[in-house]
Amino acid sequence: MHPIALLDYAGVAVFAATGALAASRKQLDIIGFLFLACVTGIGGGTLRDVILNLPVFWIANSSHVLICAAVAVLVFFSAHRVESRWKWLLWLDAVGLAAFSVMGAAKGLAITGSPVVSVVTGVLTATFGGILRDVLAGEPSVLLRPEIYVTAALVGASIFTLGDVAGLPQIVSGLAGFAAAFAVRGGALKFGWSFASYKSRPGRRPEDIS
Amino acid sequence: MHPIALLDYAGVAVFAATGALAASRKQLDIIGFLFLACVTGIGGGTLRDVILNLPVFWIANSSHVLICAAVAVLVFFSAHRVESRWKWLLWLDAVGLAAFSVMGAAKGLAITGSPVVSVVTGVLTATFGGILRDVLAGEPSVLLRPEIYVTAALVGASIFTLGDVAGLPQIVSGLAGFAAAFAVRGGALKFGWSFASYKSRPGRRPEDIS
Amino acid sequence: MHPIALLDYAGVAVFAATGALAASRKQLDIIGFLFLACVTGIGGGTLRDVILNLPVFWIANSSHVLICAAVAVLVFFSAHRVESRWKWLLWLDAVGLAAFSVMGAAKGLAITGSPVVSVVTGVLTATFGGILRDVLAGEPSVLLRPEIYVTAALVGASIFTLGDVAGLPQIVSGLAGFAAAFAVRGGALKFGWSFASYKSRPGRRPEDIS
Repeated sequence: MHPIALLDYAGVAVFAATGALAASRKQLDIIGFLFLACVTGIGGGTLRDVILNLPVFWIANSSHVLICAAVAVLVFFSAHRVESRWKWLLWLDAVGLAAFSVMGAAKGLAITGSPVVSVVTGVLTATFGGILRDVLAGEPSVLLRPEIYVTAALVGASIFTLGDVAGLPQIVSGLAGFAAAFAVRGGALKFGWSFASYKSRPGRRPEDIS
Repeated sequence: MHPIALLDYAGVAVFAATGALAASRKQLDIIGFLFLACVTGIGGGTLRDVILNLPVFWIANSSHVLICAAVAVLVFFSAHRVESRWKWLLWLDAVGLAAFSVMGAAKGLAITGSPVVSVVTGVLTATFGGILRDVLAGEPSVLLRPEIYVTAALVGASIFTLGDVAGLPQIVSGLAGFAAAFAVRGGALKFGWSFASYKSRPGRRPEDIS
Repeated sequence: MHPIALLDYAGVAVFAATGALAASRKQLDIIGFLFLACVTGIGGGTLRDVILNLPVFWIANSSHVLICAAVAVLVFFSAHRVESRWKWLLWLDAVGLAAFSVMGAAKGLAITGSPVVSVVTGVLTATFGGILRDVLAGEPSVLLRPEIYVTAALVGASIFTLGDVAGLPQIVSGLAGFAAAFAVRGGALKFGWSFASYKSRPGRRPEDIS
């Protein structure tokens, strides 16, 4: 199997697992697991294909949907054994983020040839599934957590794009992008990496503003 | 009128009514009623058509938008007479869910011929309008409520798809799917049906996880 | 530059600024500023193009994305100087709302020729970026605030559409629509304009309904 296609299936499977873990945290039933697993696993790629005006990837090939369903059932019968579902969710999300930042960039670059579009579709593909999961499950959005998140997707998509534009073989730039994105997000999770924010102060509530 | 087309208009109208009832609960003005009625009424079908790469159904034919507008005005001037808007919202939502699970599956199957895609587009069409309504109105998401919800859409889409693949006339499989989905959702509302969850425990808040 | 194209760039820039201000209120890092600026700046137009089945506007021309990025960096280094970021956010949002209500209507009318579609795409384009911003940043949704909001977009889109159908030059109907939408939204912000709601009463919480 082509390595980029492998990243695609791996990303779908781990994002589906994070969706199912979110369903477990909310004590949903098996169908809720299936729903959140599918939305999280295929949401990012669906947005990417719609924006690029391509046929949506899971319409022609049902295997992505079936992978999500299988992962959801597996998590349904095993999530209670897991010590901390939230930690698993975060780490699997990091794998999916890294895989989809490369996948999204590869597809955007192949279709448009534009490095800017490539980076944007990489970031959108990597982050949209997790955003949908958090909004639908009512979880605190991973976007608003203090550690680095979108940055990791940006690093992965940028390194892949630079490598590809520089003429490297796609397997090299793809693995480099994946590894860099995972290292950045994993470091943020493990060591609490964050950017110092510039002269930051919190927003007041609208009703307190005269 | 073709019975599937009738289901379509009926589904748009009842979902529009649920959007307008949510607007009433939030004490919005008449334009807020129109906005939430349109988004809820045509949101699910819009997602379905975008994913299937079809022209969006309300672009070529404005009658769906006009139905939503008429329903919004009607609800604006009558919602205060209703004892419990939330119960009406839930029951009308059940009718829309049943209608759109069949409509979405029928369109997905007609375009792709794939039973898997048919079931997925059925569920998405049936649930997306209500999800949009709940997210936009800041209501507790119907997805996260304990009773069966997505399951009903899955049952309706699956029964229609099985019937159609088995060669039944579309009116028979369509009505069977509609009736089954409404019975499942209605039973859940009336009798509090829910699946026992398997070894369920609630998620902790992220800040409590060491 | 064509005046409608100018409205487009201006709308993207001010919406991007509102996204960056929301990021500042949430104390995000520079990448969070970039992300929210891009999503808010190009979200409404992306939805419009997807619904109209057109190539998404920022795929062929990267300048919109680069404008959003430049605005995000500018706001990152200057937001701490601003007395009330929330007020700036609301007023810039009003400018973007007015610009996009005309832009969205112009594109919808050009593609479909239908005044109903024109008004709907005008309202959607004008409101969707801000909705995405509020949902992603966890801000109280501008849709649910008491003052007039969607109404302003509806006024702008309707006046442009009427003017264009009546055969006025596009620059006249475009400026009239922009000015009317901004006047309505600005008046609502300045003077607290709102519609009296008809026999309004607040919704109860679902768990209090027997």
